[in-house]
Amino acid sequence: IESRLPGVGTTIFTVMSRLAQECGAINLSQGFPDFNAEDVLFERVAHWMRAGHNQYAPMAGCLPLREAIVRKVATLYGTAYEVESEVTVTAGATQALFTAVTACVRPGDEVIVFEPVYDSYVPAIELAGGRAVRMRLAAPDYRPDWDAVAAAVGPRTRMIMINSPHNPTATVWSATDLDRLAAITRGTGIVVVADEVYEHIVFDGAGHASCAAHAELAARSFVVSSFGKTYHITGWKVGYVVAPRELMAEFRKVHQFNVFTANTPVQLALADYMADGSRHLALAAFYQAKRDFFRDALAGSRFELLPSRGTYFQLARYGAISDESDAAFCSRLTRDVGVAAIPVSAFFADGRDERVIRFCFAKNEATLAAACERLVRV
Amino acid sequence: IESRLPGVGTTIFTVMSRLAQECGAINLSQGFPDFNAEDVLFERVAHWMRAGHNQYAPMAGCLPLREAIVRKVATLYGTAYEVESEVTVTAGATQALFTAVTACVRPGDEVIVFEPVYDSYVPAIELAGGRAVRMRLAAPDYRPDWDAVAAAVGPRTRMIMINSPHNPTATVWSATDLDRLAAITRGTGIVVVADEVYEHIVFDGAGHASCAAHAELAARSFVVSSFGKTYHITGWKVGYVVAPRELMAEFRKVHQFNVFTANTPVQLALADYMADGSRHLALAAFYQAKRDFFRDALAGSRFELLPSRGTYFQLARYGAISDESDAAFCSRLTRDVGVAAIPVSAFFADGRDERVIRFCFAKNEATLAAACERLVRV
Ligand SMILES: CSCCC(=O)C(=O)O
Ligand SMILES: CSCCC(=O)C(=O)O
Repeated sequence: IESRLPGVGTTIFTVMSRLAQECGAINLSQGFPDFNAEDVLFERVAHWMRAGHNQYAPMAGCLPLREAIVRKVATLYGTAYEVESEVTVTAGATQALFTAVTACVRPGDEVIVFEPVYDSYVPAIELAGGRAVRMRLAAPDYRPDWDAVAAAVGPRTRMIMINSPHNPTATVWSATDLDRLAAITRGTGIVVVADEVYEHIVFDGAGHASCAAHAELAARSFVVSSFGKTYHITGWKVGYVVAPRELMAEFRKVHQFNVFTANTPVQLALADYMADGSRHLALAAFYQAKRDFFRDALAGSRFELLPSRGTYFQLARYGAISDESDAAFCSRLTRDVGVAAIPVSAFFADGRDERVIRFCFAKNEATLAAACERLVRV
Repeated sequence: IESRLPGVGTTIFTVMSRLAQECGAINLSQGFPDFNAEDVLFERVAHWMRAGHNQYAPMAGCLPLREAIVRKVATLYGTAYEVESEVTVTAGATQALFTAVTACVRPGDEVIVFEPVYDSYVPAIELAGGRAVRMRLAAPDYRPDWDAVAAAVGPRTRMIMINSPHNPTATVWSATDLDRLAAITRGTGIVVVADEVYEHIVFDGAGHASCAAHAELAARSFVVSSFGKTYHITGWKVGYVVAPRELMAEFRKVHQFNVFTANTPVQLALADYMADGSRHLALAAFYQAKRDFFRDALAGSRFELLPSRGTYFQLARYGAISDESDAAFCSRLTRDVGVAAIPVSAFFADGRDERVIRFCFAKNEATLAAACERLVRV
């Protein structure tokens, strides 16, 4: 059978996590916590299961969860999305991104993405028949070049996909960036997809500039987030998307035939859990402490650490250690040193290798300490 | 924004369930049980959550669940799929179907489907740029016309999507049907997608003729099933697909970027639950009793009941009651009689109306009795 994605292999996250497991390495590659979520959340899931809420949720998501999401977004970002028509619960943020692309991108359309780019975006675009137009976020500061973006926009530009806090670079965009994006897309009919799954993980007191907080952009954006990153449950696969109703209507046409809906007892439990509206507010400090611990522990190493301003990732240059490709270096680090990381070349369509690797520090201090003990010896 | 699915509205299941709720009607429309699954299953989910298994499952699914699926399929159908490369756990059977289509169908390809057809198939085909070629299952026996299928196959035919036990007609295909399909597709490179979510719900002692049991067809088929239908947990959204490794490799390329993986604690709980390998064997008798109860209770009504040989659905003609369209009739039945059903025209691309409606009898006897008490008065 002829492949619809001839250039695509197995996602790097699966490749590296599998290698880490085979080698018994400490897994700082794929992004997920090694500590557990709170018991009270599990009790709520158990409660709703026992109470018999195990059949199809409404296609858009359970009402109490949609209400809780809309309340949170309004509180944090000031935009009042409609519960009925402007929020949809998804089987994870990845599904929300895939479905938004599938719902909007037509064959021949162009979609602007920023490289290094999360590895699911471009395949989704290509499956829809679109073409990804790659803008460079250049090391070491990985800032978008808005003049270049303005020049890249043309009549075929259908969508711009952004991501802040940004995976893998751990940079965050400012309100000024969103102003530039708004100006560039004004009057064009371009749809923005904003991947904000790390919205609550911004460090050093900087705020998160959400598309949902930018009135002009919000009116033409899908804003995507994730419960997995926020509540330490990446394996539950529940996320959401908010968007103006015209966009959401198109999203739901695809969503209903892609996965139809997300897990019911989990949705109801999350609605309960969100009723304490402060949990996500503690997340930035929680992960900032881990970032600082991790960076301090690597201070004596030969890795050059780039800034980490958000997400739970830390980029590192290893040029002082090796001149291998980043993929070869990550593989050797996993096998010989016992610490797995992600080669950032996996986030470039052409495999461009800037000799940078990504560590995930969403781990217990004991895990981070053990990993750093190995890494400082390299 | 220009719609990618201009002809598509909200799925009929959402429309009718919402109407049922608004009217306080007994909901025999959307297919789901009104009784609960077993506590032991919930206890397993709670166990795995508390034990800290809340992060990403492997992309293909948790190993114990893949092993349990492969064991079940081998026991029932005699085909030994490889755990590593030939089974993938999905966020429900709908996602498996959507992903299989997206992975295989190229712009300009034709996909043969059988009408009345489950409402997610054709949008999935059209989003992939394919064209659905509709073969008629003609009332009242809804048998496939294999000569017509043979004549419809051409150089553009990429895929044939089949569904047995069949929703909404409640018919089942025989091994002879699969032989015909095998002969028609022999040497063509056509991929078969077999939606077998009601595999365990076949009545009157007839066996389920699975594509997985047909050695020749299995070698070119995706066989899709659902835990929702089998274990009374439609809202958990977990299903699976088995296929030969070459097909599965293409499936996973898309799956990893569509939803990536399914809920971890639920997968582990299902693996435990499947260890008692007999539960699904009791399902046919369980639902046959409900079918018989429902049909007996409607014996005195003016509905003409068609045979129900599998699934948990019952088709009925209402020509003796009304000459309204099936959609109008279902709407009136919901509002005035207090029983919701699905108009079968929703399963025809052109809205073809054969004056038939579908009831779901996956309900407690008290629910069925209350519904029938209303229906016999119509
Ligand atoms: C879908 S697995 C990848 C998790 C993640 O977001 C990352 O590691 O970047
Ligand atoms: C995805 S909701 C529809 C459930 C179902 O399979 C049906 O009612 O036919």
